[in-house]
Amino acid sequence: MSKEFLILHGPNLNLLGTREPEIYGSETLSELVESIKQYADKLDIGIRDFQSNVEGELVNALHEAKDWAAGVIFNAGAYTHTSVALRDAITSTELDVVEVHMSNIHTREDFRHVSMISAVCVGSIAGFGRKGYFLAVDALADIER
Amino acid sequence: MSKEFLILHGPNLNLLGTREPEIYGSETLSELVESIKQYADKLDIGIRDFQSNVEGELVNALHEAKDWAAGVIFNAGAYTHTSVALRDAITSTELDVVEVHMSNIHTREDFRHVSMISAVCVGSIAGFGRKGYFLAVDALADIER
Amino acid sequence: MSKEFLILHGPNLNLLGTREPEIYGSETLSELVESIKQYADKLDIGIRDFQSNVEGELVNALHEAKDWAAGVIFNAGAYTHTSVALRDAITSTELDVVEVHMSNIHTREDFRHVSMISAVCVGSIAGFGRKGYFLAVDALADIER
Amino acid sequence: MSKEFLILHGPNLNLLGTREPEIYGSETLSELVESIKQYADKLDIGIRDFQSNVEGELVNALHEAKDWAAGVIFNAGAYTHTSVALRDAITSTELDVVEVHMSNIHTREDFRHVSMISAVCVGSIAGFGRKGYFLAVDALADIER
Amino acid sequence: MSKEFLILHGPNLNLLGTREPEIYGSETLSELVESIKQYADKLDIGIRDFQSNVEGELVNALHEAKDWAAGVIFNAGAYTHTSVALRDAITSTELDVVEVHMSNIHTREDFRHVSMISAVCVGSIAGFGRKGYFLAVDALADIER
Amino acid sequence: MSKEFLILHGPNLNLLGTREPEIYGSETLSELVESIKQYADKLDIGIRDFQSNVEGELVNALHEAKDWAAGVIFNAGAYTHTSVALRDAITSTELDVVEVHMSNIHTREDFRHVSMISAVCVGSIAGFGRKGYFLAVDALADIER
Amino acid sequence: MSKEFLILHGPNLNLLGTREPEIYGSETLSELVESIKQYADKLDIGIRDFQSNVEGELVNALHEAKDWAAGVIFNAGAYTHTSVALRDAITSTELDVVEVHMSNIHTREDFRHVSMISAVCVGSIAGFGRKGYFLAVDALADIER
Amino acid sequence: MSKEFLILHGPNLNLLGTREPEIYGSETLSELVESIKQYADKLDIGIRDFQSNVEGELVNALHEAKDWAAGVIFNAGAYTHTSVALRDAITSTELDVVEVHMSNIHTREDFRHVSMISAVCVGSIAGFGRKGYFLAVDALADIER
Amino acid sequence: MSKEFLILHGPNLNLLGTREPEIYGSETLSELVESIKQYADKLDIGIRDFQSNVEGELVNALHEAKDWAAGVIFNAGAYTHTSVALRDAITSTELDVVEVHMSNIHTREDFRHVSMISAVCVGSIAGFGRKGYFLAVDALADIER
Amino acid sequence: MSKEFLILHGPNLNLLGTREPEIYGSETLSELVESIKQYADKLDIGIRDFQSNVEGELVNALHEAKDWAAGVIFNAGAYTHTSVALRDAITSTELDVVEVHMSNIHTREDFRHVSMISAVCVGSIAGFGRKGYFLAVDALADIER
Amino acid sequence: MSKEFLILHGPNLNLLGTREPEIYGSETLSELVESIKQYADKLDIGIRDFQSNVEGELVNALHEAKDWAAGVIFNAGAYTHTSVALRDAITSTELDVVEVHMSNIHTREDFRHVSMISAVCVGSIAGFGRKGYFLAVDALADIER
Amino acid sequence: MSKEFLILHGPNLNLLGTREPEIYGSETLSELVESIKQYADKLDIGIRDFQSNVEGELVNALHEAKDWAAGVIFNAGAYTHTSVALRDAITSTELDVVEVHMSNIHTREDFRHVSMISAVCVGSIAGFGRKGYFLAVDALADIER
Repeated sequence: MSKEFLILHGPNLNLLGTREPEIYGSETLSELVESIKQYADKLDIGIRDFQSNVEGELVNALHEAKDWAAGVIFNAGAYTHTSVALRDAITSTELDVVEVHMSNIHTREDFRHVSMISAVCVGSIAGFGRKGYFLAVDALADIER
Repeated sequence: MSKEFLILHGPNLNLLGTREPEIYGSETLSELVESIKQYADKLDIGIRDFQSNVEGELVNALHEAKDWAAGVIFNAGAYTHTSVALRDAITSTELDVVEVHMSNIHTREDFRHVSMISAVCVGSIAGFGRKGYFLAVDALADIER
Repeated sequence: MSKEFLILHGPNLNLLGTREPEIYGSETLSELVESIKQYADKLDIGIRDFQSNVEGELVNALHEAKDWAAGVIFNAGAYTHTSVALRDAITSTELDVVEVHMSNIHTREDFRHVSMISAVCVGSIAGFGRKGYFLAVDALADIER
Repeated sequence: MSKEFLILHGPNLNLLGTREPEIYGSETLSELVESIKQYADKLDIGIRDFQSNVEGELVNALHEAKDWAAGVIFNAGAYTHTSVALRDAITSTELDVVEVHMSNIHTREDFRHVSMISAVCVGSIAGFGRKGYFLAVDALADIER
Repeated sequence: MSKEFLILHGPNLNLLGTREPEIYGSETLSELVESIKQYADKLDIGIRDFQSNVEGELVNALHEAKDWAAGVIFNAGAYTHTSVALRDAITSTELDVVEVHMSNIHTREDFRHVSMISAVCVGSIAGFGRKGYFLAVDALADIER
Repeated sequence: MSKEFLILHGPNLNLLGTREPEIYGSETLSELVESIKQYADKLDIGIRDFQSNVEGELVNALHEAKDWAAGVIFNAGAYTHTSVALRDAITSTELDVVEVHMSNIHTREDFRHVSMISAVCVGSIAGFGRKGYFLAVDALADIER
Repeated sequence: MSKEFLILHGPNLNLLGTREPEIYGSETLSELVESIKQYADKLDIGIRDFQSNVEGELVNALHEAKDWAAGVIFNAGAYTHTSVALRDAITSTELDVVEVHMSNIHTREDFRHVSMISAVCVGSIAGFGRKGYFLAVDALADIER
Repeated sequence: MSKEFLILHGPNLNLLGTREPEIYGSETLSELVESIKQYADKLDIGIRDFQSNVEGELVNALHEAKDWAAGVIFNAGAYTHTSVALRDAITSTELDVVEVHMSNIHTREDFRHVSMISAVCVGSIAGFGRKGYFLAVDALADIER
Repeated sequence: MSKEFLILHGPNLNLLGTREPEIYGSETLSELVESIKQYADKLDIGIRDFQSNVEGELVNALHEAKDWAAGVIFNAGAYTHTSVALRDAITSTELDVVEVHMSNIHTREDFRHVSMISAVCVGSIAGFGRKGYFLAVDALADIER
Repeated sequence: MSKEFLILHGPNLNLLGTREPEIYGSETLSELVESIKQYADKLDIGIRDFQSNVEGELVNALHEAKDWAAGVIFNAGAYTHTSVALRDAITSTELDVVEVHMSNIHTREDFRHVSMISAVCVGSIAGFGRKGYFLAVDALADIER
Repeated sequence: MSKEFLILHGPNLNLLGTREPEIYGSETLSELVESIKQYADKLDIGIRDFQSNVEGELVNALHEAKDWAAGVIFNAGAYTHTSVALRDAITSTELDVVEVHMSNIHTREDFRHVSMISAVCVGSIAGFGRKGYFLAVDALADIER
Repeated sequence: MSKEFLILHGPNLNLLGTREPEIYGSETLSELVESIKQYADKLDIGIRDFQSNVEGELVNALHEAKDWAAGVIFNAGAYTHTSVALRDAITSTELDVVEVHMSNIHTREDFRHVSMISAVCVGSIAGFGRKGYFLAVDALADIER
């Protein structure tokens, strides 16, 4: 592989495929990650993935990724809206992070319209469901450092 | 047992009985839980309990409860006021959750007047000290799904 | 009777049973009060009740209750969100008041998320429908002065 | 062509390539559109484009696109943050619109953190420079109606 | 040793010395803690230290310190601005806590100007880099309980 | 009469004709109501009217109108800006209510720019003086249920 | 008598002398009014008084006072902070009204720092306990119309 | 004709009859205007009409109307909520303008609750669908200058 | 003299009698003070007075008054709305201070509705012109320490 | 001519001389521009002018001015307070723009106290009527690039 | 001299020429004032000047200027943003005051975007460096009283 | 002495030792300064001190310190929360200033939670009583320029 990306998922996303399938579909998180791996493989990109419901473990994952990852695709779930710690982790590690949301967060409650991490990410992709991850792989693949 | 409830406690509630006893009494958390178990037992309801200071472990506990619990009695402590992750965990698991606070949160600092989880709970009980848990058992016992 | 409670209802609650029955059920206010009386009777507690759409008459009712009531169960309806006068009446009479709401006020419009009286009540119970009144009787029965 | 998309650009984007090239690059708007056309052509998708500095002409363009476009890729520029008229035009025409921003709007002034149109778009892509348009073509190509 | 202090560090501070060295210097966290230990040793004060990226583990650390620590020097990092749980942990344990920040938080983003823990700490020291910890040792050494 | 409307007036409107005649004219409330009755009579519509300075009596009037009124023309005066109880009364009774203001409330103090009842009324008419009531009769006459 | 004033009291002030006597003293409302009458009598001024817990009855009292009162001394109690209706009643009747508060409202909760009626009163006197009413009589006695 | 009115429509209203017909009906804008013309004709009033999606062209239309129109019926659509320019145009031309909205803007998003032009219009009519225009003709017909 | 009061005036009040005489009258500050002295003399109370446009000199005057004054009558003028220093001076000196304003500050600009000193004064008198000072003398004369 | 300036006018300023002459005088816009031209001519500066009520045409005018203008004198009228597009046009074209307002915008409604363009202009001149334009010519004439 | 102006400077402006010369130039305050005097002399206008870091001394200077000055050119420095006292001094003295700022205050911190004195000044000039004072002399020279 | 520091005290701090001794102790300001001098003397650092209740004199003191002081220890008292002038003085003089507060300002009123000067100081020390000054000497002694 020419390079590797981390696919990082925040709280409750482990329930994917079991939760509100009419919105999020019936594909589970591991099935989704498998699809992304296959897609990335064609671009000669390796994928590692991690999910946690614990904010601090997501911080840890970013710290560790600093040593090996060429970029991070990050769906921070609920921590998107509240976590200064994750924002600082992105800044500190100087990783290229792409923010992904499956749903359009602007059609939901007001407190979901604010993202604490957008300002320190390379860019954001929201509203395209599972497709968003593939777009993120493409976007990240193109970034030169 | 006809059904089982989860009694879930958030941060600092492990100190119960050792902390400001003039407000919260000298009963420890395990003593309190034991009392609730005895009370529920008479209603033919089983009780499991979990306490954590880690937000993500409380999310995990809700995820696991999805498989066995008929309802949750949740004193989220400080995370009541800040946690979108717990709110999402309640929504995702579609559990019937009753919010309990021992003290009257409206007589404390302004930032404690907001609850992130009230809107996704079945109902809320606040201000009655340890009695609130027994009321919550009664309330939850009556809910039909 | 060992002691008596006042069940106090605010504006529009006289329409109970005729209004949005899919939310509030078809039981009328007088039927509900009758049920509460029977429930309290078993605890050797007497119940008097009063309903008014006039804020000042609710203030009057609290003033009068000072002379005879061991506690008040108060669903202040719309005045919950705006009435400083009722807040002052509770403080002035030094009555033990339990705030009850049948519906979960946090799932409704923003202006219903604020309660002017919570801070001066013993405690609050919301979201459990008619069950909330029975819980309130239990809660109030336990309070020692 | 199997279907056609509208690439719609708002105020000041006609200066692309002449304005702050260190941020936006030296490619002009017509060169960029030409590249997108070539990219879309491979997906058997036709592209028409329109740019205007006049809010109402952008509204007009959306109205006309209703008759022929399978989707719209819209960089509304400054009107992103203020235009209720464009929001209504998207809602009224029921077009599938993808919001694109070349720069990361969250690293700029506060008034650029709000988008009036995000909530009525299918999704949003921001921060990837010219690459964002190609991602938007991919995203839109996949949407079924 | 006459007494012992806990040096407690929050999220991302484990990266010290590797992160923005032009601001924070190239000294690592363990080197810094070692220096503090040597300094404290001269005052006949022992130092234990703990760092975690997990909010709840910091709560745990405060709980445990209750049994042995004469005081805590706490750089809560990003959790400074959001954590009610840490605030409650300080209040519950009744520990003497000194808040330390290496940088001047008032020259950074607005959301860093608010500290959730200042009001429950003995005092605060900010802006003096590594020197701040030595001042905190001095400050805490003087406090009588 | 084919149907009857209630003309409902809130606080201080009993002073009409005696208060700021340069703004409101010298016609008294009873003279105005008489004119409206004559106007409605031609449309084969009966009019009953009620005025009170007591918020709760206006709630009562709406409750009673539920049994006989085909619609309500409501100038809530000062309670327009503060009354959740009147809002709930309109919702609960499911009456078709038209909000009328004689003056243009947007040229007055800021607290008069908010109406608590607009969102639950069929529609609003403001600024046309006494003419507004006649327009309201016309508007209400046309509404089919 | 050369002229007469109305002493008007709002909600809960009927409890005077029975409520928080350490703050308000043990003098009842009727005793206080009697004292004011004796004081005014020396200035050849007559006093009528009225108290109500009903906002609308206070509005009525102002309307009636228009016909006979040379001025009004008004302690609106809790309605001070919320009543647009009382504000309008003062404006409509063009009465000279002096606002009186026994306690210093600025040392109490934030929502008591706002007065809806100050701007339409001649002047305000607050913080001097029962003495405030005597000062108000003096102030009003001097006003020429 | 004794006098002429301008019927002025803002952005997206050209789609009337094609847009959300369940809300706005299937009548097109030109059909609606034709109906208004017939209605006005009976009152010996002529009607000219203009619609534009361009804010500045609406300003122009008001400027031109100054020379011939006895009044303006203005549904400013989305510009209602944002346009200072239209507000100034109304003030500058000193035209009698009646604001009309077909839907009840208070039941929609918060940003639609504010009207920049209400304060400079003679009056407002909202929520009565197409009927609102006929009421506006009546209202305007009565205004004397 | 049994006791002495300080009459303290803040910025611009030295212009009294020369400034907006239609509002403030043509009596100069020294003439006003002379009248107050004569009035107080009858109550066996001495008056000293001081005026300054310099905030810090008003602080100094309060400090000095601590040694001799039985109370202070303070019209802080513009500093009323901004001065934490004067607030602290009143608290520090533990003087009984009565706040006086000649005009009704609630009918003026919004920033004049806030008083930084009200909460630390014994009481406030506003809106009665020069009469306010005489009322303040009476009020202060009655206060026992 | 040594250099040329653009005098740019926004919405409603074409009505100058016909609108509120007691405030703005009776000089028309073309007469005013003629005066400015004569004044500039003496400084060997040429003047071109443009006025539009359409926001986007003002953007266009700035774009075109980029090629020939040494500076811009811009009275943006109502768009001053709302237009991000004009702000971006100034930034993009890197023109030296002087903001002029004839009246003092701080004595008018609150929403006129904010200027979206001040921060990207060289400087601002407000309140001096037509004189402001001559001052702006002088100011701009002195700026070296 | 036909008339005289006061050039008034607020806090820290005495450091001019020694402070951030890359922004403010190396000309000292006295050199700048000398230049203004020479410029005004040609217009037959005399100049007196005063600088103080004490807010109250600036108030005093305005009071004194009332007797001799035909106008005031006022750079209030930091007091611009906070001083109600200076605002009142301008109003009280009825002097024609022109507000001058050397830098563009809208490109600095948010709290510098508000001016307490703009609304009571004749006009404002900001952003032109030392040139602003000469423009102010011109502006003031033209004002007729 | 190798270098000299200025100890600067703001309003009301001259009352130290006489004011709320249970909070601030009974040590007077001159005794405190004497202690600091002795402490600094051991570090071969000289101390000059100044206290004033006048904001502008504190500005002056900072200006003068520019010529001789190696640093400033500044307890600005009440001016901490309001003074832009002192903030500018610190910036203009480019002095190294350490902000000191004896009490924990976050446990007091909300308006004391904001510091206007923190962002331009080297660092801040709060809550340690008199000890804070000694820590500040240590902190400042270490700073290299």
